[in-house]
Amino acid sequence: MTSYEKLVNSISKKQSMLCVGLDSDIKKIPNCFEKNCAGLFEFNKTIIEQTKDFCSAYKINFAFYEQYGSEGFDVIEKTLQIIPEDIFTIADAKRGDIGNTSLAYSNSVFNYFNFDSVTVNPYMGLDSISPFLEDKSKFVFLLALTSNNGSNDFQRLLSDGKPIFQYVIEKTSKVFTNKNLGFVIGATHPKELEILRNIIPEHTILIPGVGTQGGDITAVRKANGNSLALINVSRAIIYPNDTDISFNDFARTVNDIAKKYKDELFIK
Amino acid sequence: MTSYEKLVNSISKKQSMLCVGLDSDIKKIPNCFEKNCAGLFEFNKTIIEQTKDFCSAYKINFAFYEQYGSEGFDVIEKTLQIIPEDIFTIADAKRGDIGNTSLAYSNSVFNYFNFDSVTVNPYMGLDSISPFLEDKSKFVFLLALTSNNGSNDFQRLLSDGKPIFQYVIEKTSKVFTNKNLGFVIGATHPKELEILRNIIPEHTILIPGVGTQGGDITAVRKANGNSLALINVSRAIIYPNDTDISFNDFARTVNDIAKKYKDELFIK
Repeated sequence: MTSYEKLVNSISKKQSMLCVGLDSDIKKIPNCFEKNCAGLFEFNKTIIEQTKDFCSAYKINFAFYEQYGSEGFDVIEKTLQIIPEDIFTIADAKRGDIGNTSLAYSNSVFNYFNFDSVTVNPYMGLDSISPFLEDKSKFVFLLALTSNNGSNDFQRLLSDGKPIFQYVIEKTSKVFTNKNLGFVIGATHPKELEILRNIIPEHTILIPGVGTQGGDITAVRKANGNSLALINVSRAIIYPNDTDISFNDFARTVNDIAKKYKDELFIK
Repeated sequence: MTSYEKLVNSISKKQSMLCVGLDSDIKKIPNCFEKNCAGLFEFNKTIIEQTKDFCSAYKINFAFYEQYGSEGFDVIEKTLQIIPEDIFTIADAKRGDIGNTSLAYSNSVFNYFNFDSVTVNPYMGLDSISPFLEDKSKFVFLLALTSNNGSNDFQRLLSDGKPIFQYVIEKTSKVFTNKNLGFVIGATHPKELEILRNIIPEHTILIPGVGTQGGDITAVRKANGNSLALINVSRAIIYPNDTDISFNDFARTVNDIAKKYKDELFIK
């Protein structure tokens, strides 16, 4: 089964567009977990147990693990082993480099870790993206219009009246089909999402920025229409307001919030 | 001492602009090294021993280590420990993400690994770059115009008659001084380097693309003038033509080639 088929199956089986982001940070996990890499893994395990019925994908944000060096990389590996096999996985690593280096990054996420997909930064151009898709069974989410304020700095610059993020989408969607390529468009840009959906109705969109970052689910769902999309929620699900919460209360709270998001992101 | 001071001191002490790129790949190292992470570390150790008198910086390309997971991350850590303290180090990781994630990446390269500098991708804008410079003693090389063909795809798009890479340089060099920020400009673009040197005479440029990628040292030196720059050479120094070379011949060859590059990159 290709990554794309797994993605379609997972969304259809769970009837959910929810992607849970494992932006797990030792400094922020509740005090009922040990404040080390073992505790970080137990935290992820609890999140996965409590959310796996509600989401169709998990997105692992590499930064939060890399800050603990090789031990952190181990946590990524162990976390992947406990994600149910039918749930789609995203290496949120935002990689991209010259050809032979991109190929090594691709080896890392696809062959070593065995992720289904990876987020890639388009700045270095097509020959920095294509090594991630030498294996046509894999999937890439390319950054187009990101959720942060900084997306105004360069992504929105106009060239011949068209923003750079649209060049990224048009150029790459001609080379790679929706079976291998999707895009990242932040939930904070529903107007642009609606316009872009006319250009790429069939490419899957990964939509971060709901929850803590302030993206509005109703507006995003309307803008996306019936096209394939994953809406990512990280901090709003995985971090409780009270870090002194008990383990049982934490598990219950995560379950409740994930279920609430699933209800908002339900699809038939 | 800040990273910038260390950079200036290192270039001045060695009288060399040479940066050696440790793009070390188990599949390519000579057969006199074990084909595993232990062999990879011994390979790096040999390269460092044979080149440390000729270069002012080492650039570690994360991709080549990440493909071996946590063991690869360990090799990065051990390699840093054997780089002489007065030689400048670059985490060539091309990171960049929303604020809290960039901060975690910054923790990884600066606090966990203790690199002097990191390469950062500008696509996500200023608020994705600034977390890497919360600690003003550190240094960032921001991608501007990269050495690969793909640099034509988006970096050269014109907005109001000016290429995107120039916006990147102008916008960020106003916010961060040459004490904290430098840029990556490929050796394959000497004409643009010369023009950009008028805009940013004092920001250090990291120049990859010499050697295997075909950049011309004479043209690059002329375009750069007397400004601070590091010229990176990776594959042309670290990989011999013959993978069945003996250890002693390999060590001697690396020494010879590094010395040759130092002679071409000598500064007073």
